[in-house]
Amino acid sequence: MEYGSKLLEKAVDHIAQLPGIGKRTALRLALHLLQRPETQTLDLADALKGLRLDIKHCKQCNALSDDDLCVICADPRRDEQLICIVEDIRDVLAIEATSEYKGLYHVLGGKISPMDGIGPSDLAIVSLLERLKTATISEVIFALSASMEGDTTQFYIHKSIKDFRLKCSTLARGLAVGDELQYADEITLGRSISNRVLLSD
Amino acid sequence: MEYGSKLLEKAVDHIAQLPGIGKRTALRLALHLLQRPETQTLDLADALKGLRLDIKHCKQCNALSDDDLCVICADPRRDEQLICIVEDIRDVLAIEATSEYKGLYHVLGGKISPMDGIGPSDLAIVSLLERLKTATISEVIFALSASMEGDTTQFYIHKSIKDFRLKCSTLARGLAVGDELQYADEITLGRSISNRVLLSD
Repeated sequence: MEYGSKLLEKAVDHIAQLPGIGKRTALRLALHLLQRPETQTLDLADALKGLRLDIKHCKQCNALSDDDLCVICADPRRDEQLICIVEDIRDVLAIEATSEYKGLYHVLGGKISPMDGIGPSDLAIVSLLERLKTATISEVIFALSASMEGDTTQFYIHKSIKDFRLKCSTLARGLAVGDELQYADEITLGRSISNRVLLSD
Repeated sequence: MEYGSKLLEKAVDHIAQLPGIGKRTALRLALHLLQRPETQTLDLADALKGLRLDIKHCKQCNALSDDDLCVICADPRRDEQLICIVEDIRDVLAIEATSEYKGLYHVLGGKISPMDGIGPSDLAIVSLLERLKTATISEVIFALSASMEGDTTQFYIHKSIKDFRLKCSTLARGLAVGDELQYADEITLGRSISNRVLLSD
């Protein structure tokens, strides 16, 4: 018994399994929970249990939701002909924060990554194909990360939906707003040049 | 509903109440828990509940313990006449790691800090006085942090136990092993000089 208590040791071990949290931080968090009012710890435990057991995935877009349809899919003001393919709900939150997009989403739940043992069958790709087959879609927007895995996932899905003859697009890559040219990396600056935008008169 | 799900929002809010964890990290942790096997999250929740509801404090030294007496107090090989006063169990672990101390501890559970509303009555000082009164003690060692609060706590306890006429000591302060003189702060170096150690022949 490293900490003189099996209960403490068990809690620390479980907290330390979370990503980015080591044993030392886990001990600090466990001691913090012991010092705060009892209800705070019990509420945290219940919230985690409730999250894991009761949360659903939206039947249409696979986003996390309390109901069968998520708030975005259930909103009649959204453009149903636009579908933006993202990796997880954090990307949905990031795009929603821009207020630039009024269509629907499709949350894959990850990206193809053979190194981590994640193949196409682990992602919500079948439901995406089903959705594209039955609904009237004007454009599919790929909003995946610009990494090896993101590109592989985009390539795989793009190939799978080729027969549907849909208009497909991907996020523009280039210099961030406010970036200075001299500090940009070559690949980003190169993309900024090759994807340059025509100015209107 | 910020995240499209009340369950997710509740879990994120509760996780974000932990010290050093913001909303963004809390969301990352919550999504991580959703991706891992269900048992992992339920085990974490149970461990937190068990920790908060079932853990005890050692009747003698106030350290966290599963039984009435902690492993250190229950160990007959420890020197019962030495008592080291520390702030919390992390300090016990740190001192135990040195293997230099074979006495017992007394865990205060914090330090006097009027700014945080922590007074002497919030700490395990009454039980310390009771303990010093009844047991045969050869020395009391103060191992509190060298801060305003630590010094205040040490001063308060030292004054309270004055009538017992016990030998009291405090941790040596000075340069850390391996430190170079030129990089030490003035106060630490000053303490190193005034508390210099006589060399034996």
